[in-house]
Amino acid sequence: MDASYAFADSGSARKDDLPESIDLSHHLNLTTRSRTANSLKGLYKYMNAPGMLSLAGGLPNPEIFPFESMSAEILPCDALAKKPPTLTGDISKDTVKEQSFISWLFGKKPTKTISVPKSHTPVHDPAAVDLSTLLQYSSAEGHPALKEFIRNFVEKVYRPGFADWQVQLNVGATAGWSQVVAMLMERGDAILVEEFTYPGAMNAYQPLDIKPVSVKIDGEGLLPEDFDSILANWDEQKEGRRRPRVLYTVPTGQNPTGGTMLAERKQKIYDLCVKYDVIIVEDEPYYFLYSDPWVPRAGKQSGQALRAYDNFKDDKKGVEEFFKKLPPSYLRFDYQGRVIRLDTFSKTIAPGSRLGWFTANPLFTERLLRGCESAISSPNGIGQAMITKLMLEWGYDGYIRWLRGIKATYAMRRDWMCDLLESTFHLEFNQSLPVSQHIKWITAYEKTAPGMGGAVLDEKRGYKAQKPLVSFVPPSAGMFVWLAVHLDSHKDFEKVKARGEDPNRVLLEKLFIELAEHKVLVVPGFFFDAQPGQPHKGSENIGFLRLAFSFAPHDEMKQALEIMSRVIIKFFA
Amino acid sequence: MDASYAFADSGSARKDDLPESIDLSHHLNLTTRSRTANSLKGLYKYMNAPGMLSLAGGLPNPEIFPFESMSAEILPCDALAKKPPTLTGDISKDTVKEQSFISWLFGKKPTKTISVPKSHTPVHDPAAVDLSTLLQYSSAEGHPALKEFIRNFVEKVYRPGFADWQVQLNVGATAGWSQVVAMLMERGDAILVEEFTYPGAMNAYQPLDIKPVSVKIDGEGLLPEDFDSILANWDEQKEGRRRPRVLYTVPTGQNPTGGTMLAERKQKIYDLCVKYDVIIVEDEPYYFLYSDPWVPRAGKQSGQALRAYDNFKDDKKGVEEFFKKLPPSYLRFDYQGRVIRLDTFSKTIAPGSRLGWFTANPLFTERLLRGCESAISSPNGIGQAMITKLMLEWGYDGYIRWLRGIKATYAMRRDWMCDLLESTFHLEFNQSLPVSQHIKWITAYEKTAPGMGGAVLDEKRGYKAQKPLVSFVPPSAGMFVWLAVHLDSHKDFEKVKARGEDPNRVLLEKLFIELAEHKVLVVPGFFFDAQPGQPHKGSENIGFLRLAFSFAPHDEMKQALEIMSRVIIKFFA
Repeated sequence: MDASYAFADSGSARKDDLPESIDLSHHLNLTTRSRTANSLKGLYKYMNAPGMLSLAGGLPNPEIFPFESMSAEILPCDALAKKPPTLTGDISKDTVKEQSFISWLFGKKPTKTISVPKSHTPVHDPAAVDLSTLLQYSSAEGHPALKEFIRNFVEKVYRPGFADWQVQLNVGATAGWSQVVAMLMERGDAILVEEFTYPGAMNAYQPLDIKPVSVKIDGEGLLPEDFDSILANWDEQKEGRRRPRVLYTVPTGQNPTGGTMLAERKQKIYDLCVKYDVIIVEDEPYYFLYSDPWVPRAGKQSGQALRAYDNFKDDKKGVEEFFKKLPPSYLRFDYQGRVIRLDTFSKTIAPGSRLGWFTANPLFTERLLRGCESAISSPNGIGQAMITKLMLEWGYDGYIRWLRGIKATYAMRRDWMCDLLESTFHLEFNQSLPVSQHIKWITAYEKTAPGMGGAVLDEKRGYKAQKPLVSFVPPSAGMFVWLAVHLDSHKDFEKVKARGEDPNRVLLEKLFIELAEHKVLVVPGFFFDAQPGQPHKGSENIGFLRLAFSFAPHDEMKQALEIMSRVIIKFFA
Repeated sequence: MDASYAFADSGSARKDDLPESIDLSHHLNLTTRSRTANSLKGLYKYMNAPGMLSLAGGLPNPEIFPFESMSAEILPCDALAKKPPTLTGDISKDTVKEQSFISWLFGKKPTKTISVPKSHTPVHDPAAVDLSTLLQYSSAEGHPALKEFIRNFVEKVYRPGFADWQVQLNVGATAGWSQVVAMLMERGDAILVEEFTYPGAMNAYQPLDIKPVSVKIDGEGLLPEDFDSILANWDEQKEGRRRPRVLYTVPTGQNPTGGTMLAERKQKIYDLCVKYDVIIVEDEPYYFLYSDPWVPRAGKQSGQALRAYDNFKDDKKGVEEFFKKLPPSYLRFDYQGRVIRLDTFSKTIAPGSRLGWFTANPLFTERLLRGCESAISSPNGIGQAMITKLMLEWGYDGYIRWLRGIKATYAMRRDWMCDLLESTFHLEFNQSLPVSQHIKWITAYEKTAPGMGGAVLDEKRGYKAQKPLVSFVPPSAGMFVWLAVHLDSHKDFEKVKARGEDPNRVLLEKLFIELAEHKVLVVPGFFFDAQPGQPHKGSENIGFLRLAFSFAPHDEMKQALEIMSRVIIKFFA
């Protein structure tokens, strides 16, 4: 299904063939409809008229910017290395070392220098990539060269389904989402979200008394039946709120659950959004981290795991295959302009870059620009200087290579964590859980060990199976393993329930503290509850822990999982 | 009066002696009262516990940040140069060249290198000034080293009058002000502003149907009598709005009028704010640009102007004198914690740094932190890396030296513009205008020239005085000359009025376009009207143009003012 939406290098649709976005101005809230342009910023166009002597803008003199030049040593992206690296040992042994795929993918040359000169010219040129420009006041639109790079990237990679889409820079997806909330939502509205969602996104709407409406998800994202049912049965009288008009979703490597929506689901959700006039906000920080599934040890051959991270061909076909594997963006389905896509450089370059962008219809991007002018004035010029120079140095092809390296790195790290779960627990595959019933889970049990007591269900296969401890679905993207904790395996489960307390709060919090006291820090699942305090019906016996595989070195991850398995086994003893 | 509030190096009040801020929580709006902390950010403290193995935060791996190091060539601030530079010619002649005071003040050594290494350590250390930290996710509070630098700076320079003040970083004063509006104001409120105010500030409240209430100003800022009268006579029934609870003011080098409030006025306004329970938001981008007044040519001696820019002594006494001349911040008077001060690096370092900070009571800084987390996540790490390294390299003393250089540079530029007005027009001093009647204006007339017609009022003194053209007050701070245009000197003035049109709109716009067509760009005063469309009673015959002296090189400024004088003379012919 996905392939039919996939990137094709040669055949990007001519904009002429695509429909224009429809009028969605009724979605703008009162504040946004009332916002006028920054009148001073309106002078910028005159300021750059040739030969104009400007006494207009209150621009500081670049001569007294204390930076004469800036430079950076960057990793080069000239070409993929021809040969795979030495990381091809027996991955069933614990010989995996902290090793970056980047140096492998991009050859031996360690770094390259980029530099941003001062280049003060008397006439302020907003298109120059120099410090006199980038340290100066500038448009909230972002630097023209960076914006053009992004526009070209969106056109080639996401191929929106409507003609008049635009891009608009912001200072990262968290800020971008806050701007979208500020543009579309009224106090007291309701919003559609995944039942577990990113807390940073909640912060934007929670203070506005906006009711989050949980949509059921499984490992492949939103369930269209549940989505339809919520909207079809919405009773404005009973709810005291308008039917939700906005969906916030993280389709790829969802935070915290790690699930990924593929084309078929997206098409269904998109069609429902057309039916119910819902704006889709897709927040896609992990989009390029989508990779092949984890292969358990039993199915692995020596060196196989590495080859699975990328096909490594540095040619057009290799690029095509990379794109073909990516799930299509919601933009791809969007023939009305009702999708706002949030992209960020946080995961592909660095979070400190605080740079991202909106892709949306021109009404929305213009209103978002006005909102950004007021909220941030413009993105940071020093950050823009470095990121713009980096992108111009790498070029489009180089950045695509870089994304392949990023993907390979996180796929490797995902495998580290799943491999470590496999080596610290006994795993049973194809299990059913009362949550996410559409998909199959892997359930972890205590391994038998000499001198340990307890009943052994299957002595031959070597595990004590009367107590499922935790379950997980190996993610295809993102940075997290979402660990389901079988709270009903705890001796106090019934006691806590009988006391009228929520085991998910009491027992999971206890486990979290146990882990932290043993120096392993994870995030309890209730942090991500879209509707905090409201139990997940039918799955009250399951708690969750989010484990990040993105950051820890391999030896620390190994140590952490070994501690975790001991703490969990003891917890359930 | 000011001296009693001035900075004293040794005697900063012990915090113990100062009162704590009073409870101002009733000023928080509904949204702010409803805002909870970012729960994920709450994990940061655990993440840095010694020996903690963290699988918690979704932190990207710093190994795949593509920047290995960053560096910059900066202007050094080691010591003030011993000798004045060569810029000591006869300033009555047009020999002034574009020349920075910076190289003069800071000696000959052209630049120094600062660099930010990668320094990836397995444990994420938020206090390290390295790329692994500053390119990573971080707290919205800002980098600890930068925050500490700022805290120390505020304590030494502004000496707040209450004990429990705090600083909190933001991404510049425009963003900071937006956050303050989002914290304090409800839709439909009213706000106290100077009758001409910064349009960027209007953008934050205008979409919320917040009514700006103009307070009369003269060259020394807000008029306490008018301020008192507005609040004393506020009729909630008639206005349909609560009495204003927030004052937005730019006390030093006000944008656009260039006026500066000194201690006496500030004390009066502060006391009124206590009386009427008003929060004072002082936005001080031009604070350190406050300098001695302009000296007209007649009063100047060769080389005098230069010495006036700074006393140039690079010792404790020189620093004390620099501070003694600065007007005290509203913070200095604040014994209740009702002042929120906005500072920015935009004018002292560079606008592209997009870094500034709040100084306020701890209730407000905590709520502002929560707001920033949602609105921006955190300030840009690349920008913070560079600014933090710069400040650590310069140190407090170096930054104070730098501020003296900035002040001297803009004072010189202010003199360029006033000198050029003096040489292109005939000036009459001590004039009264129907606006800002408390202060004396300088009024410009056409100079007599051979072959020019028209009646000459005072042939001996050489000017045609029947038509005052423009008037101005030489500013002591800021970046602007606020030029009052005598619209009633225009032949169509009565005709336009008789048609029921606003001369300020019709004639001033005509003059603005005339100037732009002759390649001189200025900003028409109505852009800054706090209550647009509402005529300034008693001064309908005065329009304004804002002329920036901050940016243009001297030769361009000269060219622009010569063109301007010709266009204005022709306009009024």
